[in-house]
Amino acid sequence: MPTRVIEEWLREDIPFGDLTTNALGIADKPSVAEVIVRESGIICGLEEASRMYGTLGASCELFVKDGDKVSPGALALKAKGPAKALHAAWRAAQVVIEYASGVATKTWRLVSKAKSVNPKVVIATTRKAPPGVRSLYFKAVLSGGGIIHRASLSETILIFHNHVSLIGGFEEALKKALEAKRRWPEKKLAFEVGSIEEALKAAETGIDEVQLDHIGVGELKRLVPKLRELNPQIIIAVAGGIDEHNIEEYASTGVDVIVTSAPYHAKPLNITTKIYAIT
Amino acid sequence: MPTRVIEEWLREDIPFGDLTTNALGIADKPSVAEVIVRESGIICGLEEASRMYGTLGASCELFVKDGDKVSPGALALKAKGPAKALHAAWRAAQVVIEYASGVATKTWRLVSKAKSVNPKVVIATTRKAPPGVRSLYFKAVLSGGGIIHRASLSETILIFHNHVSLIGGFEEALKKALEAKRRWPEKKLAFEVGSIEEALKAAETGIDEVQLDHIGVGELKRLVPKLRELNPQIIIAVAGGIDEHNIEEYASTGVDVIVTSAPYHAKPLNITTKIYAIT
Amino acid sequence: MPTRVIEEWLREDIPFGDLTTNALGIADKPSVAEVIVRESGIICGLEEASRMYGTLGASCELFVKDGDKVSPGALALKAKGPAKALHAAWRAAQVVIEYASGVATKTWRLVSKAKSVNPKVVIATTRKAPPGVRSLYFKAVLSGGGIIHRASLSETILIFHNHVSLIGGFEEALKKALEAKRRWPEKKLAFEVGSIEEALKAAETGIDEVQLDHIGVGELKRLVPKLRELNPQIIIAVAGGIDEHNIEEYASTGVDVIVTSAPYHAKPLNITTKIYAIT
Amino acid sequence: MPTRVIEEWLREDIPFGDLTTNALGIADKPSVAEVIVRESGIICGLEEASRMYGTLGASCELFVKDGDKVSPGALALKAKGPAKALHAAWRAAQVVIEYASGVATKTWRLVSKAKSVNPKVVIATTRKAPPGVRSLYFKAVLSGGGIIHRASLSETILIFHNHVSLIGGFEEALKKALEAKRRWPEKKLAFEVGSIEEALKAAETGIDEVQLDHIGVGELKRLVPKLRELNPQIIIAVAGGIDEHNIEEYASTGVDVIVTSAPYHAKPLNITTKIYAIT
Amino acid sequence: MPTRVIEEWLREDIPFGDLTTNALGIADKPSVAEVIVRESGIICGLEEASRMYGTLGASCELFVKDGDKVSPGALALKAKGPAKALHAAWRAAQVVIEYASGVATKTWRLVSKAKSVNPKVVIATTRKAPPGVRSLYFKAVLSGGGIIHRASLSETILIFHNHVSLIGGFEEALKKALEAKRRWPEKKLAFEVGSIEEALKAAETGIDEVQLDHIGVGELKRLVPKLRELNPQIIIAVAGGIDEHNIEEYASTGVDVIVTSAPYHAKPLNITTKIYAIT
Amino acid sequence: MPTRVIEEWLREDIPFGDLTTNALGIADKPSVAEVIVRESGIICGLEEASRMYGTLGASCELFVKDGDKVSPGALALKAKGPAKALHAAWRAAQVVIEYASGVATKTWRLVSKAKSVNPKVVIATTRKAPPGVRSLYFKAVLSGGGIIHRASLSETILIFHNHVSLIGGFEEALKKALEAKRRWPEKKLAFEVGSIEEALKAAETGIDEVQLDHIGVGELKRLVPKLRELNPQIIIAVAGGIDEHNIEEYASTGVDVIVTSAPYHAKPLNITTKIYAIT
Repeated sequence: MPTRVIEEWLREDIPFGDLTTNALGIADKPSVAEVIVRESGIICGLEEASRMYGTLGASCELFVKDGDKVSPGALALKAKGPAKALHAAWRAAQVVIEYASGVATKTWRLVSKAKSVNPKVVIATTRKAPPGVRSLYFKAVLSGGGIIHRASLSETILIFHNHVSLIGGFEEALKKALEAKRRWPEKKLAFEVGSIEEALKAAETGIDEVQLDHIGVGELKRLVPKLRELNPQIIIAVAGGIDEHNIEEYASTGVDVIVTSAPYHAKPLNITTKIYAIT
Repeated sequence: MPTRVIEEWLREDIPFGDLTTNALGIADKPSVAEVIVRESGIICGLEEASRMYGTLGASCELFVKDGDKVSPGALALKAKGPAKALHAAWRAAQVVIEYASGVATKTWRLVSKAKSVNPKVVIATTRKAPPGVRSLYFKAVLSGGGIIHRASLSETILIFHNHVSLIGGFEEALKKALEAKRRWPEKKLAFEVGSIEEALKAAETGIDEVQLDHIGVGELKRLVPKLRELNPQIIIAVAGGIDEHNIEEYASTGVDVIVTSAPYHAKPLNITTKIYAIT
Repeated sequence: MPTRVIEEWLREDIPFGDLTTNALGIADKPSVAEVIVRESGIICGLEEASRMYGTLGASCELFVKDGDKVSPGALALKAKGPAKALHAAWRAAQVVIEYASGVATKTWRLVSKAKSVNPKVVIATTRKAPPGVRSLYFKAVLSGGGIIHRASLSETILIFHNHVSLIGGFEEALKKALEAKRRWPEKKLAFEVGSIEEALKAAETGIDEVQLDHIGVGELKRLVPKLRELNPQIIIAVAGGIDEHNIEEYASTGVDVIVTSAPYHAKPLNITTKIYAIT
Repeated sequence: MPTRVIEEWLREDIPFGDLTTNALGIADKPSVAEVIVRESGIICGLEEASRMYGTLGASCELFVKDGDKVSPGALALKAKGPAKALHAAWRAAQVVIEYASGVATKTWRLVSKAKSVNPKVVIATTRKAPPGVRSLYFKAVLSGGGIIHRASLSETILIFHNHVSLIGGFEEALKKALEAKRRWPEKKLAFEVGSIEEALKAAETGIDEVQLDHIGVGELKRLVPKLRELNPQIIIAVAGGIDEHNIEEYASTGVDVIVTSAPYHAKPLNITTKIYAIT
Repeated sequence: MPTRVIEEWLREDIPFGDLTTNALGIADKPSVAEVIVRESGIICGLEEASRMYGTLGASCELFVKDGDKVSPGALALKAKGPAKALHAAWRAAQVVIEYASGVATKTWRLVSKAKSVNPKVVIATTRKAPPGVRSLYFKAVLSGGGIIHRASLSETILIFHNHVSLIGGFEEALKKALEAKRRWPEKKLAFEVGSIEEALKAAETGIDEVQLDHIGVGELKRLVPKLRELNPQIIIAVAGGIDEHNIEEYASTGVDVIVTSAPYHAKPLNITTKIYAIT
Repeated sequence: MPTRVIEEWLREDIPFGDLTTNALGIADKPSVAEVIVRESGIICGLEEASRMYGTLGASCELFVKDGDKVSPGALALKAKGPAKALHAAWRAAQVVIEYASGVATKTWRLVSKAKSVNPKVVIATTRKAPPGVRSLYFKAVLSGGGIIHRASLSETILIFHNHVSLIGGFEEALKKALEAKRRWPEKKLAFEVGSIEEALKAAETGIDEVQLDHIGVGELKRLVPKLRELNPQIIIAVAGGIDEHNIEEYASTGVDVIVTSAPYHAKPLNITTKIYAIT
């Protein structure tokens, strides 16, 4: 995370100094801040939170590390410094841990459920993180045992319906996609299909991955073996409305990859910060 | 929103160009992108989304404006330009609208519920938006009819338990808070209390606002009239675990302000974008 | 102060290296820089100056701290490092201290004068600092014993004539202001009035603060008790052309707050820097 | 001025929206803002102010241009747009004009006084502008008829006492300076001298410019002809405590360049902004 | 290219205004700048150059577009505006075009040579562009008919010797690589091998691409068919010292991808800019 | 180099984490990275490379310093830290060293050749570095023994044909240039001439430097003594197509300054990085 971002996260919360701590006359009091977990989950964002405290001149000690499983009452981070530094960082740093841990924990729950049914399936999250926090949320997904479906538009060739509509039809788009792959042989070529027919046609060609959108579990179960038969190498991904209530069903269909944005809207993990004076 | 932020939101999604659109050879095709709502709610983020398209050279037309109530099927934004501009902006712009509208819609639901019971109560959101999007999410809260409890640490004097612990006790902290107010007479002085006793003691003094944290509805109902009696001018705020399931109860207690972070973790509003060629 | 700003202040003065120190061949000579005060006042900006030296690889020791009263000859800061680091930082760092200390010293003189007449009055500075240095100058005002009237447009509801003109008259504006306060009960509501009549009318309502602009001392003396009688809670602020020559008179009127921009155009405090070789 | 700076100047004043204009419900009212001069002087900063209004979506018309002489009552700039844009830009834009015009006007007064005595003398300002506004203040100096002594450390070879002390004596420093000039023949070589003797010695060598610091007018009058005799090409600059009260005397000594920081602490020019509704 | 970058490219060349144009008194003269090609090649960077002129208030017309083949004498861009805008942008804009076109032209020559021998081979450039211009140079490579081997470390799994050394041997690294691929099925897995033996072993497994470093043409010719036999799907890339003098030989070996950094150090294309007054 | 730039150079190469090192499960392995020279030359960029490693949490030791002459096999830098830090910095840091050292080495070769013929001549590079790396490349030029002709447009008065064309002729431009010098006596005045006649006319006036563009060696040899005769103080610079093959000839003409962009397109110096585990 660039210094610029770390400092911007602080500046959001403290554009012109911490009025309360100043006005109470306690700014220079030597103090400790303890970040304490109040809910089970996967912790994440500690590295960034430490840098936030550090930027303001506090020293930090970590008691767990990003990606660790934590239980209520666990002490995660301890910062020491003048009260003004701790009060300036406290809430903004805690928010980073809460959101990152929320994403990590949700990912981990989805991964656990899916793997319990199909140990080979992987859970991949989308490009749909809130604006500006993609980098933090991707890290949280990895901490929770997930992977990233596609980090950006610069990474792979992935044909959406919005490309097909500009080319003028599925067959033509498939043809163009295969040409594109010849020009960019090192990039994965994936195709998001809108129907069973398209899925089967795409699988017959040299595409690397077929992405199925909003398809029912029953249909998917019938489709997967057919796709594998047509193209044993093909990677089969499914997306669309998949969350904790139905991920086991989707995992059971035998797909390779389940694509979801659900972790990005997870509730932040419940964290608290206690500040007290060094006596 | 500074240009720097608008462009950073795009760059996250497209660090080195849009591989797919380039590789398919459709980059210069004159095209249209339509942003269409698929779920009822309050729309927000259109202004920012337009600037994202505009930055890439597409021209935009808005059919609704930020804060409008929208229904499924509504066309919100239409952008025109070469396919490369539309494909580069599409998903990143849609994500901004989805999250901002999710926040606005959730706020609006909370406000509606609370006001149905107590028309004078206001719903104020906290400083706990995800890091980096505070400005966007604050705007969305306003679009949904809420207000901002406290935009930053620089704004008001608000004594938390983490201040009290550094001062050495509630009585002493209250004394220091009132001194602080004498030095900063133009700033609001608020006090977050941990018990009924503290609430009553604080109300007797010249503080402007008492903030009650994690207090039950029953207790709150008994406390509010006592506080008003002790100090008719006092503003009474309550926070802690308030969401759609209990906001009506809290509103019915007669408090002035309900403080919540719930809108910040709302599900994004369901939006889609259709791109097609100009023929 | 974000790292970005600290580094930009240096870059302004040294876009492509320090030609002189390089060309003289003394760049790597181990050296000391001493920042010495040449005029009595309140020192400020040392924290920022230290970071400027530190960024370039010099180590810093402070002998006084921001907000201290200093006399001619006082050693404020000592930096050690290669000549190239000290020569690159010297002037730019000194300028930061000179301006910040000038602002702090002027504030302190205004505060001293005002308090000598009316110990309860506070001196608040405006939003009119030079562009880009608001954060530094606000800190300097606090160092000199002043407060900030209003840090930004996002902080309080403050009705100016430029709002009244859009609403269509004082009465209507007052009405709208009170409605605004009902929607934003936690924010202070202040009103800048243009006449005695407006002041009296505003005081009768529930506004928190009345701000009097360019009003004579005699008139003000008569007005203050009337306002207090109408509304004992009201905060009375006065602004407009108040500086060292007349602040005692204004303080003597019994207002609560004197608002001024004068510290922002104070002469920089006279500071010098001596660089010598470590032998 | 980079967009980043223009937007940062706005953001300082409006980190989270304009609370007042929003809360009053007048944000979308079509309005006009007029920037009006209230004091004679040289106007500057209009270009930057226009960009600030423009960034927020208002259209601007200028009635004078940067560097023009203006009189009280002159309309300088007219902006049209929704009230939210005008109220967001108004004060921050006005502050830019006030400070830049203050610098320009002060420069112009210094130049006028100096030229009235010695039409060939030039007034050059130092590197000591407030941190972060060097670029704006340099432009203002040019608008007022001054020049820039030395824009940054990267520009010329200028030996200060702080270099001499590292080299170990004036003679040795002069020798090293002349060597430096042989390596960098295209750069001006200037030397700040501490005494008459040093001035005369320096003039005898091939340096381009001698800079005299804190030297009295009488002494200077005797020194200038001697320096010219020793080196007819040499540029003679004088600095140190020169302001309106003594610039004529210094100009009369026949020096080529008078170096001063005085314009940087000039009082801002008195400007006002009137906002009204388009009817 | 973000606005921030466009403006930084200008600011490098003009930190404090254009001294010459100002000092000559021609700043406001209405003028034209013509960017003219003096050497055959592929033009690139015009889009960025236009934005540089536009940022300063000049209007631009393009006569060719990025990726076009150009001949000596061709007019590429015409800008109109005051002399100060044209003189401020001229050289910095021309430099962008020169370097980008140099990269595009060199790529195109490499592609032409390679395809003349083996029409199916593709030319991919590395991550080794000069720091900070990766995005511009990647675009130039595409303009010249090349592709990007791997835009960043976030894109694919590519095992270098520096990974193998941390894992403890080739066999173990290959095993770990295949495990990595099972966890990240959607990412390409490439392996840079150090010998023929490693190449053959790697090809037998499920890796997607084998990358051969600094291998002779003769050896490569013998190796390619063996690799294809072992794994018909495998992509074969070769890198290491490949430039115009030997690319045909390497192309003739039947590899799929030739990886090179050569375009990044190409000589800039010879371009000139003529500025004249509008009469 | 600002932190922002150091971090941007890293971010270019690692927008969303290092996929390979993560996926292989070796991210936390304690490791060493050694940067080793493979080609003789002048090393540069080590300071920046160290900061890149340091930013990611690795500790660095340097074995040579910027500007040192290095031979194949030399160990330049050793970094220690977890594999994720070393792998994230490695390539991006190496590229900085390679390019900066390439520029330094080429400069040094040009300087050596020129000085072997004419020890007094200096080699100055132009403003034509690739966009965004001017500061790094200038430093590399100094490391190689060159100087900078003119760092930016803000530095000196240098009249190009593109100024002459706006003024309306050489004689008139020369007159205006001399007037400009009277207004800016501290700035160097240089004139780029297009013919022998112009060179001679310019030399007769008070200009400081005449710059000859694309003039043959024979003609130059005849011209130099004439110019010196007309104006013994004048600095004579020559530019246009000067590189290693002809720099000795140009040096032999007796000019003061040879201006060239050749170092900016030098081949990067051959450097490698070896990463291994700490055992």
